[in-house]
Amino acid sequence: MYIAPLAQYDFLYTEVLGTDILETVTNGEIKAADAAAVLTTAADFAIEILHPLNTVGDRAGSVLADSAVTTPVGYKQAYRSFAEAGWVGFGLDPAIDGGGAPFLLYNAVSELWSAANPAFSVCWLLSTGAAAALHSAARPELKDVFLAKMVSGEWTGTMNLTESDAGTDLSAIRTIARPNEDGTWAVTGQKIFITWGDHDLTENIVHLVLARTPDSPAGLAGLSLFVVPKFLPEGRGGIGERNRVTTLSLEHKLGLHSSPTCVLDYVDATGYLVGDLHRGLSAMFVMMNTARIGIGLQGLGLADLAYQQARDYAQQRVQGTVVGRPSGTPIAEHPDVARLLTSMSSSISAMRAFSMQVAEWFDRWQRTDSTDAAELAEFCVPILKAWFTEEAVRIASDGLQVYGGLGFIEEAGAAQHYRDARIMPIYEGTTAIQSNDLLGRKLIRDGGATARRFFDRIDSSVGILRVIEHPVAARTAERLDRALHTVRDTTETLLSHAATNPRDAYAASVDYLTILSLLVGAWMHGRIVAAALAHPEMSTADQQRLTEADFYGAHHLSRVHSLAEAIHAGEIG
Amino acid sequence: MYIAPLAQYDFLYTEVLGTDILETVTNGEIKAADAAAVLTTAADFAIEILHPLNTVGDRAGSVLADSAVTTPVGYKQAYRSFAEAGWVGFGLDPAIDGGGAPFLLYNAVSELWSAANPAFSVCWLLSTGAAAALHSAARPELKDVFLAKMVSGEWTGTMNLTESDAGTDLSAIRTIARPNEDGTWAVTGQKIFITWGDHDLTENIVHLVLARTPDSPAGLAGLSLFVVPKFLPEGRGGIGERNRVTTLSLEHKLGLHSSPTCVLDYVDATGYLVGDLHRGLSAMFVMMNTARIGIGLQGLGLADLAYQQARDYAQQRVQGTVVGRPSGTPIAEHPDVARLLTSMSSSISAMRAFSMQVAEWFDRWQRTDSTDAAELAEFCVPILKAWFTEEAVRIASDGLQVYGGLGFIEEAGAAQHYRDARIMPIYEGTTAIQSNDLLGRKLIRDGGATARRFFDRIDSSVGILRVIEHPVAARTAERLDRALHTVRDTTETLLSHAATNPRDAYAASVDYLTILSLLVGAWMHGRIVAAALAHPEMSTADQQRLTEADFYGAHHLSRVHSLAEAIHAGEIG
Repeated sequence: MYIAPLAQYDFLYTEVLGTDILETVTNGEIKAADAAAVLTTAADFAIEILHPLNTVGDRAGSVLADSAVTTPVGYKQAYRSFAEAGWVGFGLDPAIDGGGAPFLLYNAVSELWSAANPAFSVCWLLSTGAAAALHSAARPELKDVFLAKMVSGEWTGTMNLTESDAGTDLSAIRTIARPNEDGTWAVTGQKIFITWGDHDLTENIVHLVLARTPDSPAGLAGLSLFVVPKFLPEGRGGIGERNRVTTLSLEHKLGLHSSPTCVLDYVDATGYLVGDLHRGLSAMFVMMNTARIGIGLQGLGLADLAYQQARDYAQQRVQGTVVGRPSGTPIAEHPDVARLLTSMSSSISAMRAFSMQVAEWFDRWQRTDSTDAAELAEFCVPILKAWFTEEAVRIASDGLQVYGGLGFIEEAGAAQHYRDARIMPIYEGTTAIQSNDLLGRKLIRDGGATARRFFDRIDSSVGILRVIEHPVAARTAERLDRALHTVRDTTETLLSHAATNPRDAYAASVDYLTILSLLVGAWMHGRIVAAALAHPEMSTADQQRLTEADFYGAHHLSRVHSLAEAIHAGEIG
Repeated sequence: MYIAPLAQYDFLYTEVLGTDILETVTNGEIKAADAAAVLTTAADFAIEILHPLNTVGDRAGSVLADSAVTTPVGYKQAYRSFAEAGWVGFGLDPAIDGGGAPFLLYNAVSELWSAANPAFSVCWLLSTGAAAALHSAARPELKDVFLAKMVSGEWTGTMNLTESDAGTDLSAIRTIARPNEDGTWAVTGQKIFITWGDHDLTENIVHLVLARTPDSPAGLAGLSLFVVPKFLPEGRGGIGERNRVTTLSLEHKLGLHSSPTCVLDYVDATGYLVGDLHRGLSAMFVMMNTARIGIGLQGLGLADLAYQQARDYAQQRVQGTVVGRPSGTPIAEHPDVARLLTSMSSSISAMRAFSMQVAEWFDRWQRTDSTDAAELAEFCVPILKAWFTEEAVRIASDGLQVYGGLGFIEEAGAAQHYRDARIMPIYEGTTAIQSNDLLGRKLIRDGGATARRFFDRIDSSVGILRVIEHPVAARTAERLDRALHTVRDTTETLLSHAATNPRDAYAASVDYLTILSLLVGAWMHGRIVAAALAHPEMSTADQQRLTEADFYGAHHLSRVHSLAEAIHAGEIG
């Protein structure tokens, strides 16, 4: 039984990030109490409507027959309720009838949807992203036709980038759009791995397609973006004739079975140019940050679900005797099971706090145009995406281990998480792509300036922890300080490698991202510890917080020092 | 395309472990050249017959209909050829017509079968184990009836231990055997997770069943072992009437789909007592070491298959530009893909060498009754099992990552390895069980004496490496020496924790097993480096060996120091 982390969010909003970070960031528009009400409503929906479909969707999967995709029983009604409640446009600009939720709230709600049903959640995630891209780049007439339906959720949107020889490298895209006489374009080509590329949830689907045009420059500079709807529009939001886009096949995937991953074939399909010719990629970049954060949060949600189920199983399962405990003690108290569970929960708490920290920076960036917040936010996107999704895989695997042999049986449910999680460190940019982004665009490009500013903030937290008289605060401060020194040191090594032999730097990019994620996790625990120790009396939740912080320091953060050795070694072989 | 590591085995036999370790250990009976011939034959069979069925078996799975299990097309013929070639009894005692292969050869062959088809390989593995248990414990008349058929592979054997409330804790077994008037027993109860518990490969299946008897003592001391065949025997090796054992269901598993995992229902089924009453567990222990090593080797085989496929894909896939390389360079040379591939291969080489080191000790134990060899062998069993199988999961996951989005599509093949591997750190004793065995029975019981002797051997290798004038030898010696100090230190900490607060020790058992596996891996690389550097000229294979050793030291062995911090911390919370 999944329980939404409402109390944890309240603690983060009102104690860890400030006295009421939502109120501060939104200039009094939204308070923590409002957020609590929204999260409660979202949690009810997630648990009652979306979560029961998670297993159903895995078993039935979406199926393709007679060129049409049918989703599992219950998905259509669930999606309709989700859209009618206004959740599709929840984070979008109020100017286009979106909910205008700040990231601090939007990210929290996203975690809940993803925990409840990750396959369902990629549908609204990409749809929202497509709407945001159209909103930012399309001319007004185009927005008039498509946006209202997308924001309301009556139509969904998709992203069509990948082709069989153009995955990570979009410069190899071969889909072509030729101008028609009426100002529309005729789009021809085959796109693969199109998430929710066809389905029966809505009457229309709006594909955003990256394509070349005749005589366009080679490479990335020749790509333009087109809207190619499944059904041509009639007037504002009406449905006309079927466009020439066909679903050739659905992929047979390891997980996320209810999310239809399509091969779409465009043959002179009618498309509409979005933004300027040859500027397709920049329109796509608009949604890249939010899509990456969205997938990161998908990892966080799945990790929490996998953790909760493993913990619940371990707390009721009795098997053998537990060292130092009376007979009949459940396996959750076996020292190694306890280790696995605390390992998971301490990581999840760190990630959730970091998601809020990054959200705060995004909100400040969006609402005050702060360069400082913008740079810190951008710096953290690849960390958040790669860290959360790598942890999702690890935590789903540890969760399965807690079940023992039962974990290998599909009916226990742990195996589904292990399968579903595995795409998360791959799609929307693999962990290596995130790491190269961190290293190349976020670290090397400004010579380490943002990184050093980021480290200074962590240093301030060390100072705060040092003056708290409590052994966990003292240990956390000492470990964080030591790790910070190590990370500063590896940062300078990488900057120097980048200048002399870039392969030495890029061979360490994933290890560098990992080392930063460990540091950031410990930073979050440091702030959680400080907030918990400010309470006049320690609650059970506070005790758990201290345990998690202490565990994180000894078991997770300690990896920093090993990774540093690997980073300093550079490329081997 | 899987390529069997024949050259690597030859290098281990003739250079790393001695000038001809097989000849030494078998007293001239078998030489490295003989082993090469056997391995070549086995490799041909593995690649031509077993490997093509690996994907077939995953897709079709074994199915239960009308109370009978049908294996995928091709399995019956493959099994028949396998048995006819003498592979089922290859490692068994010549006194019962087994092949009498030394562990040094048997383990190598086992790796090949497992790489080619891990689901198939658990069939002969358990069958062999059942035969060995019968051979060691059963009275002659019983052996006469069953053993010849099992050794020839005409009948298979199974192990029936687990019940729904008796998994890790066998003391909770409730299956009961009541004496019949004719000296046989009437066995009643339900056993779960019975690997290859029913199938159509052979005309009969010999179940070894752990059960209680009326008025037997409670707990483990009340368990006895029974042979309960699917068909009652007639005379020596004949088939009589169907016994009262029914396959109630097959588990719907994450992986190993062609291996039928059965729920077996015994209702007054006719059984024959094996060995003495209430001594069932000790008969089972006979096969425990070999079964655990067998599953460890399954992990090694699967890891190598997953690695080879990922490497081959990366060497032909071109996508994007590779830093510091001309355009058109395949992704295998992306610094991060190269890192992943070397991470996998360096781990695989370390495991393979360790498998041979452990085999040498088993052979010396079995052939010379050496107490020293016996203790070292026993010390290493849990390390081998847990390390190899945890690595199988990690390497299968890394292999999938190399494929990018394609890895999530079942047709690419990487996902099957990721699914198949996941049971390996669970069955035949989870990683936690192995770690508790290492800590409780192998470390604490003799106060660390065996461990210290083990460490002294590693110390000798450090001494040998130190005098070789080569930077990789020097770095390897330095890292190995530093790691050895750390591990000795954590060993003393654990011994002291065990004396004062056992929960502090057991909370660190998995980390301790991991730290030992890392140390042992580096030890193996140290010996490989010494052997490679003894060559008058470095071949490409030798260069790769130095790269792997150097990589292992910087990336894998360095984890020792982080783990030590976690071990010293003891239980947290």
